[in-house]
Amino acid sequence: MSEKKRRGGAGAGAASGSASKKPRVSTAASYAESLRSKLRPDASILATLRSLASACSKSKPAGSSSSASKALAAEDDPAASYIVVADQDSASVTSRINRLVLAAARSILSGRGFSFAVPSRAASNQVYLPDLDRIVLVRRESARPFANVATARKATITARVLSLVHAVLRRGIHVTKRDLFYTDVKLFGDQAQSDAVLDDVSCMLGCTRSSLHVVASEKGVVVGRLTFADDGDRIDCTRMGVGGKAIPPNIDRVSGIESDALFILLVEKDAAFMRLAEDRFYNRFPCIILTAKGQPDVATRLFLRRLKVELKLPVLALVDSDPYGLKILSVYMCGSKNMSYDSANLTTPDIKWLGVRPSDLDKYRVPEQCRLPMTDHDIKVGKELLEEDFVKQNEGWVKELETMLRTRQKAEIQALSSFGFQYLTEVYLPLKLQQQDWI
Amino acid sequence: MSEKKRRGGAGAGAASGSASKKPRVSTAASYAESLRSKLRPDASILATLRSLASACSKSKPAGSSSSASKALAAEDDPAASYIVVADQDSASVTSRINRLVLAAARSILSGRGFSFAVPSRAASNQVYLPDLDRIVLVRRESARPFANVATARKATITARVLSLVHAVLRRGIHVTKRDLFYTDVKLFGDQAQSDAVLDDVSCMLGCTRSSLHVVASEKGVVVGRLTFADDGDRIDCTRMGVGGKAIPPNIDRVSGIESDALFILLVEKDAAFMRLAEDRFYNRFPCIILTAKGQPDVATRLFLRRLKVELKLPVLALVDSDPYGLKILSVYMCGSKNMSYDSANLTTPDIKWLGVRPSDLDKYRVPEQCRLPMTDHDIKVGKELLEEDFVKQNEGWVKELETMLRTRQKAEIQALSSFGFQYLTEVYLPLKLQQQDWI
Repeated sequence: MSEKKRRGGAGAGAASGSASKKPRVSTAASYAESLRSKLRPDASILATLRSLASACSKSKPAGSSSSASKALAAEDDPAASYIVVADQDSASVTSRINRLVLAAARSILSGRGFSFAVPSRAASNQVYLPDLDRIVLVRRESARPFANVATARKATITARVLSLVHAVLRRGIHVTKRDLFYTDVKLFGDQAQSDAVLDDVSCMLGCTRSSLHVVASEKGVVVGRLTFADDGDRIDCTRMGVGGKAIPPNIDRVSGIESDALFILLVEKDAAFMRLAEDRFYNRFPCIILTAKGQPDVATRLFLRRLKVELKLPVLALVDSDPYGLKILSVYMCGSKNMSYDSANLTTPDIKWLGVRPSDLDKYRVPEQCRLPMTDHDIKVGKELLEEDFVKQNEGWVKELETMLRTRQKAEIQALSSFGFQYLTEVYLPLKLQQQDWI
Repeated sequence: MSEKKRRGGAGAGAASGSASKKPRVSTAASYAESLRSKLRPDASILATLRSLASACSKSKPAGSSSSASKALAAEDDPAASYIVVADQDSASVTSRINRLVLAAARSILSGRGFSFAVPSRAASNQVYLPDLDRIVLVRRESARPFANVATARKATITARVLSLVHAVLRRGIHVTKRDLFYTDVKLFGDQAQSDAVLDDVSCMLGCTRSSLHVVASEKGVVVGRLTFADDGDRIDCTRMGVGGKAIPPNIDRVSGIESDALFILLVEKDAAFMRLAEDRFYNRFPCIILTAKGQPDVATRLFLRRLKVELKLPVLALVDSDPYGLKILSVYMCGSKNMSYDSANLTTPDIKWLGVRPSDLDKYRVPEQCRLPMTDHDIKVGKELLEEDFVKQNEGWVKELETMLRTRQKAEIQALSSFGFQYLTEVYLPLKLQQQDWI
């Protein structure tokens, strides 16, 4: 570490070698470099982080099932009002399927044919619950009878998907949506249909899609102060080199999560992740670093939520300073509209926005040429975000977003490289942590 | 394993439960199931694989630097004719940069200004060398003088990139192209310019881009009978659960590669990878399984090549039966046009096409509805592939491609799921291996 630091100093010197030619950059660079001297010893920053972590572990576990049920209990007859699906083990899902099928069989034997009661997942049926800080489905079911020309095919598909899920659970394996589709292309027609019915089945059974053992492809990676078992294999994420550990697609195979980290650092992009991993940032400030490499996939969201719920650590986010970066935060925090029924299990409320924030651009004097003008589309998305509940709830976020829209400038995390390749890990992040500069 | 197998049997029975309703699928399914009985005991298949592996390790290591230099030695004055860049350690790259800069300084002091000699990377300058089975650059350099309005800016960018690479190497870190761009946005203007000059610098110095410590983002994953060190951390890929180990972006941090595998299984897609990982296919047939999740990225290509060169194992490929699957094979085997100068270090010649091949569709009686009609674009790409040298060299490949174009049908790996979710790992692949059905 100290060796690297010394080399770091030399490199910074080299970087300012061409200073005389570009005065403005040089001023910004030397100011940026001067911030290094503001850094207190690591021990002092660690003390700050420790109090953050302990405050977080004492607070009620936001978004955990206990808070969900508490919030729901405050309303009238909550189970009847909203659909909140939950993780279920295979035995429980299997017996739910059995019950459904037995009911259908009984109905057929009594001469009434059979019909499924399917919750509506329409957008008009999705509401944001401030208490839960999540989008949920209003309970409104429609009948899907087999003995009706309009619904016969869908009822058949539903029965088929139920039977396929049953087979998958019984074998104790996991499959993808695509696998499911290919088991009966003739019936399903196209994958959108089997996917849609899979979501129906998930709501009907009141369990998450991952409980059905139908998994999404993963692209997330994790490194840092974390150990867990992936399908029984013990994984030590401090020993995963620079590449990191691929986040498992099937969250139910993850167990035995342990960590001595003080926080979770959620990173939007691969390049910043690589910088943090190579510099072993987590050894200087004990943390777990993860990224979905852009738009968050389901596996990464499930994994983050598991970490948050089990370890009760604060989550700090490092994203680009643009509307898209905020959008990504919103997906982690509130879920996406088309998975709303599953949102309780996919979302991690209470993520702190560490950076890069619009106000950082001036605060750290990011050179003009490293900022990018916002496009019309960016501005449109930014304005829409201002209307979103998850933004409006946080005064600090509103201010930052307003700053972004006023200056019409955005910047990527990598813009910090203009002060040196390791500025992110050596100055920017430590200073942010020291100043508790998250909102 | 045996537990899973037993469950497998039960599941297969369940899958054929709805057989009476769909006779055609059922016939195909029962035929597919009958292939299971053709499987000989694993010990016999393993013997086949062992002889394949030993044949491969005895053959001259195709594509390794020794074969490259041997092939080149056969031509007249090869170094003068072609540019073949190679991996270099940091000290060597640094001293090459120093020599370039000293030459420039001497030239300036003698009053002649300075100029870089930059190899042309134009498409017209790229040739396919059958002996090497690779695309290389013809050596043709153009001067890039500073004292010329037309080239002054590019010469400045070149000098700047040389100095940045020097700083990166001295610090012993790795950066992305994007990081490099952000260090001097004002000079570079846009990233395409710094990227292009980076490629120039790579050719000028005669070393690979990864030797410059400028890395690509990784998306590949690996599991199976492989251990290696990633930045000093010992990684055992049999203990990476279902998620696998993310392939490191910086290949020069990979060392100590060891394996008791008999072959490398290169998989096009994530879903098939997951199936193989969850079923721990590598424990039944010792192998290393890797995927780039679609279009191969540079990190995965470098990693595959390292495995092939160091372990001298046969590489068997499992891709979709469509022109795109073959395209992916071609990128692994011959490189892509815009990285031709680096092709020697990125390509893995002699990959065997295991499946899914056009002839498999009938051989395994893949149901009609699981096959897809080729689009006009597919057919165009397929016809172009027929003209490519790497296809023409392999009679078997030509036949398969002709079959594809004649039937105008394509299929994904997952089409095999129509015979059961684990058909791929339990029947298709074992039978392929037993019958040595690769070309």
